[in-house]
Amino acid sequence: MYSHCTTGGWILGNSVDGTQAEFVRIPHADCSLYPIPDGADEEALVMLSDILPTGFECGVLNGKVQPGSIVAIVGAGPVGLAALLTAQFYSPAEIIMVDLDDNRLAMARRFGATATVNSGDGKAAETVVKLTSGRGVDTAIEAVGVPATFELCENIVAPGGTIANIGVHGTKVALHLERLWDRNITITTRLVDTVSTPTLLNLLESRKIDPKLLITHRFKLDQIGDAYETFAHAANTHALKVIIEA
Amino acid sequence: MYSHCTTGGWILGNSVDGTQAEFVRIPHADCSLYPIPDGADEEALVMLSDILPTGFECGVLNGKVQPGSIVAIVGAGPVGLAALLTAQFYSPAEIIMVDLDDNRLAMARRFGATATVNSGDGKAAETVVKLTSGRGVDTAIEAVGVPATFELCENIVAPGGTIANIGVHGTKVALHLERLWDRNITITTRLVDTVSTPTLLNLLESRKIDPKLLITHRFKLDQIGDAYETFAHAANTHALKVIIEA
Amino acid sequence: MYSHCTTGGWILGNSVDGTQAEFVRIPHADCSLYPIPDGADEEALVMLSDILPTGFECGVLNGKVQPGSIVAIVGAGPVGLAALLTAQFYSPAEIIMVDLDDNRLAMARRFGATATVNSGDGKAAETVVKLTSGRGVDTAIEAVGVPATFELCENIVAPGGTIANIGVHGTKVALHLERLWDRNITITTRLVDTVSTPTLLNLLESRKIDPKLLITHRFKLDQIGDAYETFAHAANTHALKVIIEA
Amino acid sequence: MYSHCTTGGWILGNSVDGTQAEFVRIPHADCSLYPIPDGADEEALVMLSDILPTGFECGVLNGKVQPGSIVAIVGAGPVGLAALLTAQFYSPAEIIMVDLDDNRLAMARRFGATATVNSGDGKAAETVVKLTSGRGVDTAIEAVGVPATFELCENIVAPGGTIANIGVHGTKVALHLERLWDRNITITTRLVDTVSTPTLLNLLESRKIDPKLLITHRFKLDQIGDAYETFAHAANTHALKVIIEA
Repeated sequence: MYSHCTTGGWILGNSVDGTQAEFVRIPHADCSLYPIPDGADEEALVMLSDILPTGFECGVLNGKVQPGSIVAIVGAGPVGLAALLTAQFYSPAEIIMVDLDDNRLAMARRFGATATVNSGDGKAAETVVKLTSGRGVDTAIEAVGVPATFELCENIVAPGGTIANIGVHGTKVALHLERLWDRNITITTRLVDTVSTPTLLNLLESRKIDPKLLITHRFKLDQIGDAYETFAHAANTHALKVIIEA
Repeated sequence: MYSHCTTGGWILGNSVDGTQAEFVRIPHADCSLYPIPDGADEEALVMLSDILPTGFECGVLNGKVQPGSIVAIVGAGPVGLAALLTAQFYSPAEIIMVDLDDNRLAMARRFGATATVNSGDGKAAETVVKLTSGRGVDTAIEAVGVPATFELCENIVAPGGTIANIGVHGTKVALHLERLWDRNITITTRLVDTVSTPTLLNLLESRKIDPKLLITHRFKLDQIGDAYETFAHAANTHALKVIIEA
Repeated sequence: MYSHCTTGGWILGNSVDGTQAEFVRIPHADCSLYPIPDGADEEALVMLSDILPTGFECGVLNGKVQPGSIVAIVGAGPVGLAALLTAQFYSPAEIIMVDLDDNRLAMARRFGATATVNSGDGKAAETVVKLTSGRGVDTAIEAVGVPATFELCENIVAPGGTIANIGVHGTKVALHLERLWDRNITITTRLVDTVSTPTLLNLLESRKIDPKLLITHRFKLDQIGDAYETFAHAANTHALKVIIEA
Repeated sequence: MYSHCTTGGWILGNSVDGTQAEFVRIPHADCSLYPIPDGADEEALVMLSDILPTGFECGVLNGKVQPGSIVAIVGAGPVGLAALLTAQFYSPAEIIMVDLDDNRLAMARRFGATATVNSGDGKAAETVVKLTSGRGVDTAIEAVGVPATFELCENIVAPGGTIANIGVHGTKVALHLERLWDRNITITTRLVDTVSTPTLLNLLESRKIDPKLLITHRFKLDQIGDAYETFAHAANTHALKVIIEA
């Protein structure tokens, strides 16, 4: 579990300088760097550096998505959409996407969601459960990070199901054990450790995934301020991921 | 998962009459009854009907207790002690037992706990973490069912560890995702379904467990009122499990 | 493991009469029958009664097919093709199909094989290993049942890989432990027990699989003799599965 | 799987000089060296460098030994006895030890075997199956490395069981798929990679295992020739492991 090594963990941009620089020093590089395969598309690889393994490891693998299962992903931001793309490796029967933004939900349908729910009416839990004929979902992936979305996951998970948390939370949430104590559920948290990078590289090379779908904007290096602005106002700009070209 | 069959679940004493009767009808008996092995001790088998599989399935199996791992069990009542007895099947390096009652903690040491912590001083979390040289525990088993004991489990679980809930909760608890979101932890809930009964029968026959340790009192059938009284005042009577003899 | 119940196992057409009759008695029906979903295609469901769960359980699940992995299937008969269809639930990077019959290999490519190898030249092992850049395959599925095809699997499996046997063997095979003892491989055998039927029904309903691809011929009930003839001479008739219509 | 790294594998004494020297260079030392815990018994640690992880990883972990299961270990040499010691971490109901040497079988009983079988009469398979009331064993561990002992494992494994090979084989063995194809068995091979060393260190520190049981002889460094002689004639000297003292 090298995301929690006593000498490792989240280092770049956290305990040492980040990588927006001409030269970078990468601690533990012998365990965390991978050669770029011949002929690989470098823009696609940028998506593999963080967002795809986050959605895949914390959401899909921890959530134990299985062939024929029913999945809900709460949050259609970049990381939720990364979970949506990588969940399809396991051929779930249904993937229900929940968000407040109809633009993102439309994008989710293009990315493979079988149903979408706008949670703006406060009835998302009822709607999702109804979509599953009352059973609930096998996997609920939390990709927002606030109490309301985590509680939504508690309300839609079926007996025997899993809630896989990806969201970065800033406060505690209410865990309704008075309802869940006897329902055989599993809740997981995880910091991405990119152990899935070789798998994702194989899947990219064999064209089982097109991570460039996540790229909405491109900027030259001298426009980097605009790039940050665009990403900061994603609701208006509909930005998912922004590429800075050399 | 037959604890959650659409036509199954908790039936006896819940949706039909229980078994304190001369004759009982057992629904789904073809999946839930086991022959008594020749020469088996019937008192030991009484412990196998509920408490041992509860501690084993919901606590030990869900908690993924492993050889060499560090386990804490919060709550030294009968079900916590059942988890203590069955956790030893996997040879953890340490089993730390937490309770408010020194009598029960003394019993826990006799049953195999390697350390005990009386949580009466409000410093149980610090004490447990200190016992693990600051690392925390690999498995925290919650066997009480109130918010304070569940939060204690959140405070002592190591990165990568598991909180296995056994307690029957009557209210929600606070889940501190603001600390736990990146710590790779797993939380599980489960209703015992006795799928482990054949395993426990084998272990009983091969003398790997002595479930009669849990029996503290015996009453004749015509003293059944006293039996209930004794169990109801367990703090004073030091009762764990009470046997009614025919 | 109900394919090996002391009172179960392979019963129909083996220890009691089979199902080519107007009425049949199904022992253990309470555990082995499933309701037909509304609107389901009955011809597709015929494929779910035996061949798809066999390929899925004995080949794909036992073979631990994973996203991004490399799979070889030796034998492109109906059960090998069923393994090919169901392996795709897990998005392997490559599926290499090996057979002696170019017609079946052409069908395999239509069903999703990424490469095919005709083993008629006796060099199948070299060819497969070359297709994997010398590494070997993560999963080798044996779907023939003779010593030569099993040994082919031994020759192409990578260190850490799995050989999943589906073939019904009539004689012993040579296991080259002098080469394999230190290569961390796993070999599995299994009798299908249809535990995957609910999963396959979900996948059928959500159109993740089209089992009707396996149906090559249809006969009326009074042509049943022709149907058996057609299936018996599959090499010439190119028959995979034959449907008898009422 | 670092026993099969492209730049790793078995190096010491194989592709570079071994460790019977005053100074040694350890390739990949950053992944394969562990600090000695304070107060540890160094002789016990010598057993942890090779023989215990071999028995534990290749035999016990690969063999999926479980609480209540029935285990047979074929071969009571040092590595078979290491499997016997480490199998007990999982509380199997029975451990049956098979060997030709009554001295080693007597030692096996002292180390925890619940039954022993001398295979000299050629009836070991019948005897083992009889000891299991006709069922066969859940785990058969092969710790010899010749065809006869591997075939013995094939003859005693129960449906659903596992054969875990530890033996270093010099020739092929006969795999009786004509009997085993439908019995849901798993066969595993593995080269020890000492990934279990931290676990074994924890178990040693908590006194769950006494590896010094395996040490039968001690020699001074200037008697090293006698030490090799003693180990070479283990049948007469009853040597298991020989310690060279500085």
